Amino acid sequence: MNKFFNPSSIAVIGVSQKPTNLARNIVKNLTTFDFGGIVYTVGKSGGVYSGRKIYKSVLDIPDEVELAVILTPADTVPGILEECGKKGIRHAIIESAGFNEFGEEGKARTRLLMEVAAKYGIRFVGPNCIGLMNLKNGLMLPFLIFQDNFVRGNVSIVSQSGGVAITLLNVMAAEGIGVSKIASIGNKLNVDENDMIEYLIQDPDTDIIVVYLESISDGRRLMELGRSSPKPILIHKANIGRLSSSVAASHTAALGSDDNVVNAALGQVGIARFYDRQTLVNYLKVLPLPKIRGNRLGILSRSGGHAILAADAAETTGFELAEFGEAFLNEVQKHFRANVIKLTNPLDLGDLFDYDVYLKIIEETAKQDGVDGVIFLHVYFSAAEAEPSRVLIEKTRELSFKYNKPIIVCVTTEEEETCRLRRSLQQPVFTSPLEIVKALALVRDFDYGPRKKVEKPHVVVDEKGARSIIEGCKSEGRSPFLQEGLSIFKHYGIPVVETLCVRSEEEAVAAAEKVGWPVVMKVVSPDISHKTDVGGVELNLRDGRSVREVYKEMTRKIKTKLPSARIEGMLIQPMIGGGWEMIIGAKRDPNFGPAVLVGLGGIFVEVFRDVAMRVAPFSRDEALSMLKSLRGWQVLAGARGRMEYDIEVILDVVMRLQRLVLDIDEIKEVDINPFLVLHKGHGGMALDARIIL
Amino acid sequence: MNKFFNPSSIAVIGVSQKPTNLARNIVKNLTTFDFGGIVYTVGKSGGVYSGRKIYKSVLDIPDEVELAVILTPADTVPGILEECGKKGIRHAIIESAGFNEFGEEGKARTRLLMEVAAKYGIRFVGPNCIGLMNLKNGLMLPFLIFQDNFVRGNVSIVSQSGGVAITLLNVMAAEGIGVSKIASIGNKLNVDENDMIEYLIQDPDTDIIVVYLESISDGRRLMELGRSSPKPILIHKANIGRLSSSVAASHTAALGSDDNVVNAALGQVGIARFYDRQTLVNYLKVLPLPKIRGNRLGILSRSGGHAILAADAAETTGFELAEFGEAFLNEVQKHFRANVIKLTNPLDLGDLFDYDVYLKIIEETAKQDGVDGVIFLHVYFSAAEAEPSRVLIEKTRELSFKYNKPIIVCVTTEEEETCRLRRSLQQPVFTSPLEIVKALALVRDFDYGPRKKVEKPHVVVDEKGARSIIEGCKSEGRSPFLQEGLSIFKHYGIPVVETLCVRSEEEAVAAAEKVGWPVVMKVVSPDISHKTDVGGVELNLRDGRSVREVYKEMTRKIKTKLPSARIEGMLIQPMIGGGWEMIIGAKRDPNFGPAVLVGLGGIFVEVFRDVAMRVAPFSRDEALSMLKSLRGWQVLAGARGRMEYDIEVILDVVMRLQRLVLDIDEIKEVDINPFLVLHKGHGGMALDARIIL
Repeated sequence: MNKFFNPSSIAVIGVSQKPTNLARNIVKNLTTFDFGGIVYTVGKSGGVYSGRKIYKSVLDIPDEVELAVILTPADTVPGILEECGKKGIRHAIIESAGFNEFGEEGKARTRLLMEVAAKYGIRFVGPNCIGLMNLKNGLMLPFLIFQDNFVRGNVSIVSQSGGVAITLLNVMAAEGIGVSKIASIGNKLNVDENDMIEYLIQDPDTDIIVVYLESISDGRRLMELGRSSPKPILIHKANIGRLSSSVAASHTAALGSDDNVVNAALGQVGIARFYDRQTLVNYLKVLPLPKIRGNRLGILSRSGGHAILAADAAETTGFELAEFGEAFLNEVQKHFRANVIKLTNPLDLGDLFDYDVYLKIIEETAKQDGVDGVIFLHVYFSAAEAEPSRVLIEKTRELSFKYNKPIIVCVTTEEEETCRLRRSLQQPVFTSPLEIVKALALVRDFDYGPRKKVEKPHVVVDEKGARSIIEGCKSEGRSPFLQEGLSIFKHYGIPVVETLCVRSEEEAVAAAEKVGWPVVMKVVSPDISHKTDVGGVELNLRDGRSVREVYKEMTRKIKTKLPSARIEGMLIQPMIGGGWEMIIGAKRDPNFGPAVLVGLGGIFVEVFRDVAMRVAPFSRDEALSMLKSLRGWQVLAGARGRMEYDIEVILDVVMRLQRLVLDIDEIKEVDINPFLVLHKGHGGMALDARIIL
Repeated sequence: MNKFFNPSSIAVIGVSQKPTNLARNIVKNLTTFDFGGIVYTVGKSGGVYSGRKIYKSVLDIPDEVELAVILTPADTVPGILEECGKKGIRHAIIESAGFNEFGEEGKARTRLLMEVAAKYGIRFVGPNCIGLMNLKNGLMLPFLIFQDNFVRGNVSIVSQSGGVAITLLNVMAAEGIGVSKIASIGNKLNVDENDMIEYLIQDPDTDIIVVYLESISDGRRLMELGRSSPKPILIHKANIGRLSSSVAASHTAALGSDDNVVNAALGQVGIARFYDRQTLVNYLKVLPLPKIRGNRLGILSRSGGHAILAADAAETTGFELAEFGEAFLNEVQKHFRANVIKLTNPLDLGDLFDYDVYLKIIEETAKQDGVDGVIFLHVYFSAAEAEPSRVLIEKTRELSFKYNKPIIVCVTTEEEETCRLRRSLQQPVFTSPLEIVKALALVRDFDYGPRKKVEKPHVVVDEKGARSIIEGCKSEGRSPFLQEGLSIFKHYGIPVVETLCVRSEEEAVAAAEKVGWPVVMKVVSPDISHKTDVGGVELNLRDGRSVREVYKEMTRKIKTKLPSARIEGMLIQPMIGGGWEMIIGAKRDPNFGPAVLVGLGGIFVEVFRDVAMRVAPFSRDEALSMLKSLRGWQVLAGARGRMEYDIEVILDVVMRLQRLVLDIDEIKEVDINPFLVLHKGHGGMALDARIIL
């Protein structure tokens, strides 16, 4: 991968003598940014451009070429890549469009391209991209002309869209955030986001990795990279629109869209997901500072209004206002000119106009053990106070590292002055108290860094038993029936309600006697998947007469509604009182593999869609954090003096369900809906089972 | 009020010859901004400043003075105002701090100040503010030195904080949004936000009113102004932290914080509330354009990535992507150079580089009936395409008004170029597809403009009957008992469960026979307000033996727990099955008066705090919109084929409860918790009543 970002020689292919030729812009950019390697120009019509001979083919170049950059009409690209192969070039960037994104014609071209690349072992970036940039060596390969208004730094960007990459560059330039490398990966037919992320993780010039994606190439590998990365990775995964829920067969799949799986997967391995540029900027500004280690902010302000805005923001992001110590307050008291302001947190500096005193107060605030981060809200006009303000901000950077706490200044001044500060200072410059507090909250809640690989849950299961049922279903080309599903659960140690399958009224009554009154009756039919919709479930049957009647009546009704449905009998289960109904399920995501979902039933899922997801395998601790992330956690934990439910049994079922979907690939979706959880110590049981192969 | 913004002569009081004197800055600002009236300088030490005599007192000024601007130490202010009064000045701005915000000393000064103002009929702005600005006549009264980097326009600002006013000005300057008048009102002891808003509503130079408040002076008047204003009013009400819920006696007060009342009040009269500057900027940019009248967006993009971002944003804000007509697509097809891109919405303009064609496509898009708004996502670098881009944006403004639909351009270009565009163009310039879509959603959902005053609900009630109960309670210095509360409800036509008060076991059994089995028993005691907590409620008593037993047992238990509690007997109510429990209540807000709250019971309020509020009086339609705003509305409306509940009875109770709190001022809080609503056509009833006087 290093050859892509540090080639000693480049051939830019597609250059012509026409002034509108786009490949010329690549050469111009390399000149503007003073690229350190040799640049050759290639174009089928030959000629001269910018003092360079335009070779008609790469084969005509007398020297070795490490990287080819191709911007020619799509149908010429496979042939040109073939020539590159013959020339011994093993790295290429294809900026041309017109491949797999462009109908049948493009797809044929794509196949050809892939064949050539495979034949010569060429690795290539693109097609349909604006190429790579490395600000350290002046490698600037986009076909749009860039001016050098970049700040150099240690943030690198991988973007599926060239346009979005440019937006990010503009935003970072405006905010004074330093850039290192940029990769526009386009259709990512060969080199994909994971290749780039892997490279950047070990790149010494990169501290933070920002990624924009419209699709995910290999979710499991992305998770692996996230899990092992010591550097923060921030991903904007766009294209949330095409939800899969409309085609979902199970409740789990309907509740847990593909996008929810992405959220779960990234969160589990410590990759931050963002949706808007303000959030990205907030991350990028505060991540390089010492991390905030607690919840207590000290707020100092030249304006009472801004202090209130910061306090409001603290309230909505879970921060507290630190309690300032007596000694500190006495110290500060000494420095006030007119004693016009109350000494509280936020501390309103009122009519105190002395930058040395400001710094002293900032330092005294940072020194206190009870303070985890300091915000200084500054209001000034550049005409009078530009220089002392600049010094103040620089000093807060020193103090920040001295006391190992974030100390951040928010400036209210003219736009031009803000821009100047951002371009000249290393310390981040904010203009909104709200955004500072949000940024601190983002970083406080962002837990990145290497973490252990999670193994399949260690639970005793009877995989063989479960498999034999599934093989049976497969041989009949169908998904398991309810009683088979429950039986699979049993093999995996998931408690299930006692369920008897009966084929007559007499058997039904006997079964009811056996499981205990009152009972529930459910129809068994290979042709009915939503039993409730056809009247195939009756609850709370209290005696033999009801059981017989319902048996007859249910059979009659279903035969009328669905004359073709084969009724194979009825299931009898005891009617269990008390407890809380939950949904526990799993689905297999094409990108990330099996994901497990859990939520409380009833209005929690129906109205509020209050569910949590994780990609398997994950630990029991993670399962608990899933439960705790639910709004319904309060109910499970026994809020307001009510009894606690049996959390342990839920965790156990979640672990066993993971194991089931990890063991048996044929399972596409599973629902335990409902799983009835009883009060603490009393366990719980699956009342229904829905397994889709 | 006009004299404040258009005085023909001003005395700036507090000017001295010291270079650090702050009042001099006021004079400087008036000079910089070329104020059109006469400026006199006043200061107790006399002398000369800037070619002007410094008068020792306003009384020494030989001519008439219309407005005094005072910036002197707080303790001198009342005396100076007295002199102003004698001089015949009736308008003053007091910028000095040290009044009611500053301890007992300040409060005494404040009383003096108010007396002087009353004596001479002086209206004053402040104290503790940075004064007023009127960009039309150069009236610039802040004591901080301003440079003229303002864009002139029709947005006026009222701000309780000077610092926040400056922030807003900087933000608007950076975004190229034009400003008209700014009022920093500080402690607003005399002229308050309502006076300013009232003035700005009729001010011909103001089209949009932006307000920043930390407290609300008179909520009812603010609502009146909002209700009658034809101009949009946007309010940032900060200081949300000090919630009143901790001191709430009823559930209604606990659930409906003061801040929720503010939300309800502003929303009802068509005032928009915002919390961050990005939202404000979005409003200010899109409000002056033709309003979007539907949900269907046409998105045109030079970058596929930005198109996806816009589509994602549309999905999350309830917009749809318009279906482009066949004729339109054929027309567009003609103009493509290489046919590389699919013709869909979003329309990716791909490799088409022709500004005339862009404009033609924009116009064709806007023309379509099925399109309510158009977004053009533009990516360019200023070196090559600054001029055509500028022309394009200007033309979209014309098209916007021609087709009476918002057409907005998002530019991705260098920061400097964006700033240039913003300063030179009238058309708003966005840099983020997400923010455009959010801005369109804000304006789509913002229903401002004059609306009818709502009368007290016209329902037949027996006010006298209710009053006599309340008088009885008042004479005993207590709030009503449950059965009195229910009786008050009855007088107001609110259906209540049949409730009999008994004083012995025998009476209890007889009462149970009368109301019908099973029954509920609740203790009656003037000393117990939370009955459940002391075991004072028992449900589902099925026979005489249970009633007797529970009567004895409850009495015994309470006597043990609370020996001093007087037990006056028990209430017997029938146990009603089915239905859904709701909470309906009201509280009296110190700023806005009575506010009504409604929500579904159980986890809807306990876990999700899913409640709606409105300030009384409000219409039955508004009551319905309250219910519809609840997440629980789906349950009431009978989601998923379930039975609908009796919405009519809820609306009726809400109207009657409004009437009750509007009629009887003594009621501080009321809870109907629970109100049991039955299925459609079956009504509902209050099961409990809690009235706090």
